[in-house]
Amino acid sequence: MTGISFTLNDKVRIALMLDDLGINYIEGGWPGSNPKDAEFFREMKNHPLSNAKLAAFGMTKRKGVNAKDDVNLNAILDSDVGVAVLVGKSWILHVREVLKVSPEDNLDMIYDSIRYLRDHGLTVIFDAEHFYQGFKEDPDYTLRIARTAEEAGASAVVLADTNGAMLPHEIYEITTKVVKEMKTMVGVHMHNDSGCAVANTVMGVLAGARHVQGTINGLGERTGNADLIQVIPNLVLKLGLKALRSLDDLKKLRAVSRFVYEAAGLSPNPYQPYVGDYAFSHKAGLHADGVSKVTRAYEHVDPELVGNSRRFVVSELAGSSNILMYLRDLGFNVTKDDPRLRHALERIKELENEGYSFDLAPASAVLIVLREIGVFRDELRIDYWKVVSDDDMHVAMVKVNGELGVAEGVGPVHAIDRALRSVASRLFPELNGVILTDYRVILPGEVKNTESVVRVLMEFSDGKTRWRTVGVSTSIIAASVAALLDGLNYILMINHYKGSR
Amino acid sequence: MTGISFTLNDKVRIALMLDDLGINYIEGGWPGSNPKDAEFFREMKNHPLSNAKLAAFGMTKRKGVNAKDDVNLNAILDSDVGVAVLVGKSWILHVREVLKVSPEDNLDMIYDSIRYLRDHGLTVIFDAEHFYQGFKEDPDYTLRIARTAEEAGASAVVLADTNGAMLPHEIYEITTKVVKEMKTMVGVHMHNDSGCAVANTVMGVLAGARHVQGTINGLGERTGNADLIQVIPNLVLKLGLKALRSLDDLKKLRAVSRFVYEAAGLSPNPYQPYVGDYAFSHKAGLHADGVSKVTRAYEHVDPELVGNSRRFVVSELAGSSNILMYLRDLGFNVTKDDPRLRHALERIKELENEGYSFDLAPASAVLIVLREIGVFRDELRIDYWKVVSDDDMHVAMVKVNGELGVAEGVGPVHAIDRALRSVASRLFPELNGVILTDYRVILPGEVKNTESVVRVLMEFSDGKTRWRTVGVSTSIIAASVAALLDGLNYILMINHYKGSR
Repeated sequence: MTGISFTLNDKVRIALMLDDLGINYIEGGWPGSNPKDAEFFREMKNHPLSNAKLAAFGMTKRKGVNAKDDVNLNAILDSDVGVAVLVGKSWILHVREVLKVSPEDNLDMIYDSIRYLRDHGLTVIFDAEHFYQGFKEDPDYTLRIARTAEEAGASAVVLADTNGAMLPHEIYEITTKVVKEMKTMVGVHMHNDSGCAVANTVMGVLAGARHVQGTINGLGERTGNADLIQVIPNLVLKLGLKALRSLDDLKKLRAVSRFVYEAAGLSPNPYQPYVGDYAFSHKAGLHADGVSKVTRAYEHVDPELVGNSRRFVVSELAGSSNILMYLRDLGFNVTKDDPRLRHALERIKELENEGYSFDLAPASAVLIVLREIGVFRDELRIDYWKVVSDDDMHVAMVKVNGELGVAEGVGPVHAIDRALRSVASRLFPELNGVILTDYRVILPGEVKNTESVVRVLMEFSDGKTRWRTVGVSTSIIAASVAALLDGLNYILMINHYKGSR
Repeated sequence: MTGISFTLNDKVRIALMLDDLGINYIEGGWPGSNPKDAEFFREMKNHPLSNAKLAAFGMTKRKGVNAKDDVNLNAILDSDVGVAVLVGKSWILHVREVLKVSPEDNLDMIYDSIRYLRDHGLTVIFDAEHFYQGFKEDPDYTLRIARTAEEAGASAVVLADTNGAMLPHEIYEITTKVVKEMKTMVGVHMHNDSGCAVANTVMGVLAGARHVQGTINGLGERTGNADLIQVIPNLVLKLGLKALRSLDDLKKLRAVSRFVYEAAGLSPNPYQPYVGDYAFSHKAGLHADGVSKVTRAYEHVDPELVGNSRRFVVSELAGSSNILMYLRDLGFNVTKDDPRLRHALERIKELENEGYSFDLAPASAVLIVLREIGVFRDELRIDYWKVVSDDDMHVAMVKVNGELGVAEGVGPVHAIDRALRSVASRLFPELNGVILTDYRVILPGEVKNTESVVRVLMEFSDGKTRWRTVGVSTSIIAASVAALLDGLNYILMINHYKGSR
């Protein structure tokens, strides 16, 4: 979609998460149009899926070309997956004005393309592009398209509202008519141009569709696709359908949603139904009191069911129980009523107002609490640092625990990272095995310019475990130093307490 | 809603914009709960509305109090508006567990409250809270609520899905039943907790509701309310209803949406249906080619109808037609077969492989093409730059076109931004009016650590037009310098060619 592209690595991680969530098919890309997508299918050979089937996308063959000679179709075969999602024209306007072939030729192109892939052993899901608009103009022709796909051996015929033009009642009416005519499973594929993608998907299912296409967080061209993060709980919790394997899978929705935002370089949408930070927020006071007593009077579903939690906007900090859990895991016994804990949580809240976010950086939150409780003192303490950067060179010097270090890097953050770690691993050789496995930069404020506050998220690994930290500053170097220092201090603390237990 | 409050001044401006848009009722606040809201009603005396009626919000009277002694109701009278929006309980669960009165007492409270305001000459719109959930549990009681409001003299009885729990088919079914029972106008009020607020509003109207409540951009508690910016064009353009006075009013939607975001301190949502920046964006080359030929084949409505416009974005998948269109808009006549154009497109592709993304930065792409074609030379050229950064201070020096500049900043990127711009605006005073309206940092590479390639996206404005650029480097400072320089060179180039035409 506009402005977003995923790295190969992130695409693999997302595929594995979707597999774990219980999604049936994962459309991994369009190997015929994009070499990066072909690379993804190759890489996925190293990551077997336990539940989902990997699918490659493509168009029906070009006019005047035999299916066996069509580059696009052969790229699907080359991607060596078991499932193809094939898109074809079903709106007579597109057949005539865009494709510029006769209605009969288009039917042949669809039949031949599906047949060719079926003959090579693939399962074929056929996406009938612009089906609903096509149906409104010429219902007979669109029905012939659907039947042709069925006859050619498609395992599902998917009705697509490609322009996102439809309203829910039209989707229900038209889908009902098509389902009646078909023996093959009918699917729906909705876009959000009228703001109805989720509702239209639900209406399609109510009309008998049993295959649903969508994207995580609705990410897609223009206004996006149907958001599976909203569609799935609607189907499971409100219509009682078995869209996932179990209710336990549903609890993964928030984590999946957040990971995809992060990989896309987007901030999560706090207003997103079901999984957003504000989705189950309640104003403090009488109302919040009411909520704790009669939750079903104020919440359409239990937030825990989708991996979310209730939030009271004033007073209590959401997630305090999370932090307690972390501390107990580490062997610190702190009770909920400990005034030092309360104090630490207030500090965390203050920092969150300044742009920190501990959702993805529990290690930094744990360090704040431990410092506040006074059981722990950072092993590594920076005396000062300085970076000099120009178009040729980046060099950093740093003084840590009284020791000087210096290093060059490919950028200012890389230079300070190397300088800081050179001293740290001299002082604590165990840090030699610690690597940075993830590094993200987000501008959390509403106004974004070069003066903005920068939030840096880091993930570390020592080969056995992974931990995440956060740093915030108007200087990306200072924010990176803070996150880096937290990351090193965290593992030193863990090792220290492990040793003493 | 969470995290948002409008200033008095902005509330007045929004009210005047809504009046101008052709909205019938503007609910200005809850005078009984918030002194700021009472102030707004006083201030509005100085700003007569030409079309809309101002309404004050309030709850039905408290139990055990006479309507004439109820503080809330009297606050509505004090606000001196002609219309009251009164909310009352209709779900038996709430009556019993939250309000803790008998079902009969609740009916009396509703009747007396409406009657009291009617006796003082007010038009009363009655909002039946949790109506749909109430109806599913006890249809008879909710219908008695609706009839009681009617008998007391309400001019509209509004069915509210207060928890946002409902799916479209339920809204249609229940609303149809209520409309049949009522002589009074029925309204709908939807929340977005199931992601269906817009669709549910449409379904309510299809079921016979003729009064619609919502908010601009859907701003509201939790996941928000029905977004009028999406509801209105659906009703007007797709259902042929007269929701505004004329099609000309519809063209104001994008401006209204953007003003409200701005006043709320939020960035506009580029994916918002109808009015978002990407709502009518087209990506692939072939596709964009098709769009110019048969717009209705690719767009659910004409973007101009809602004050929006078509956008073509440059991308990896794109052919040359997008960029040709940009160049022609600028007055450069380049043909599709020009070998220099082909060469430039190859260069763009190369850069995209290095981590550039021109989707959101067409200005940078245009500069590359113009440089390649040789018709243009960058006005600003950097000789060198240097940044010194530590935990206390960030200072940058830069030499541009032979002139030195120096500046401090809150971070290294801010410092170089200020230094570079100080020289640039000395050389080209017209750059004084150019501001940075967006700044994004993305790590596009496979592995993300401090050594990673950084992609910086910038958006600029000179008050009339906006343009976007991109810079890529392992150094965030160098990437920012590149994007900044492109941004300034782009507007200098535009102004130059405008001047020469």
